[in-house]
Amino acid sequence: MTEGSQGYSHNKEAVLKRVRRIEGQVRGIEGMVEADRYCIDVVTQVTAVQAALDKVALELLSDHAQHCVIGAEAGRQSERTDELMGAVRRLMRHG
Amino acid sequence: MTEGSQGYSHNKEAVLKRVRRIEGQVRGIEGMVEADRYCIDVVTQVTAVQAALDKVALELLSDHAQHCVIGAEAGRQSERTDELMGAVRRLMRHG
Amino acid sequence: MTEGSQGYSHNKEAVLKRVRRIEGQVRGIEGMVEADRYCIDVVTQVTAVQAALDKVALELLSDHAQHCVIGAEAGRQSERTDELMGAVRRLMRHG
Amino acid sequence: MTEGSQGYSHNKEAVLKRVRRIEGQVRGIEGMVEADRYCIDVVTQVTAVQAALDKVALELLSDHAQHCVIGAEAGRQSERTDELMGAVRRLMRHG
Repeated sequence: MTEGSQGYSHNKEAVLKRVRRIEGQVRGIEGMVEADRYCIDVVTQVTAVQAALDKVALELLSDHAQHCVIGAEAGRQSERTDELMGAVRRLMRHG
Repeated sequence: MTEGSQGYSHNKEAVLKRVRRIEGQVRGIEGMVEADRYCIDVVTQVTAVQAALDKVALELLSDHAQHCVIGAEAGRQSERTDELMGAVRRLMRHG
Repeated sequence: MTEGSQGYSHNKEAVLKRVRRIEGQVRGIEGMVEADRYCIDVVTQVTAVQAALDKVALELLSDHAQHCVIGAEAGRQSERTDELMGAVRRLMRHG
Repeated sequence: MTEGSQGYSHNKEAVLKRVRRIEGQVRGIEGMVEADRYCIDVVTQVTAVQAALDKVALELLSDHAQHCVIGAEAGRQSERTDELMGAVRRLMRHG
């Protein structure tokens, strides 16, 4: 890994595009609430954002595992694996 | 329920405030990716957004249950309950 | 609601059958671990049990909502709805 | 990795003990349903079992990552990482 580069660097534009789309979806939820849209429809949109965030998180973690864990010097692989699994654990419980 | 009013109507400003804060958090994630921040830190922020969205969804569903399900005329309560539990099911699996 | 009867009472044999099948799946996991089966295959079985438990929980909550919340005297519906949504919240975070 | 050995092998008795305790918890749920216990209390127990299964799955995956992914010959690490992240994805959605 070169300085300033991350597991997702080769993939950065695609990740940014996804996150910007999620920002748009969240703004869409604001619009729905402002327009007094039906509760269940708002929750359905929240669920769609959650699914999109799950996808981003899994991509980031996969890239991280492939590049920053496997790619680490042997002496740091174990520590990085612990860190990765910690992120998985938090993601499963949502903090 | 009056025309145009929803379960969250009495609570609308608080819901909007929460959703706007989430929009800010998502923009923060974009900034982190643009700045090549460490993968695990980005995922930690994604997890924080997920937790905030869970909270919004649960509030919307609680308000909906209290106002639109219990508050419905007797003949519609059962149908609305099915709809509510469908939303819960989708939320648990994220779509 | 009569004494000793619950939201799932009309459905009790079906619920019991499901839970017994889950018990069998858990015993299957024990057998896999004892036989030194591949880690990923064991986790896949754990995931299957989780999905089966989600289904049982959602059925119990739906029955509860239909019978014990909607069916409650008006003065207790709101309190029971809070209790229901508390169970949903815990289920989403797994405790 | 020697023949017949898995990532959890050094930990096998602890894993088995946990899974057996989960089996006991599931039998406890059967007992609660047979005794017509309150729906919400049954769901609370289901949630406890889910949390215990999450823990087992995360331990299995951590052991797998530490031993079977990092420990694999270089040519197989990437493929095993994909497989690991696939298991994480399924676990997050419960199948």
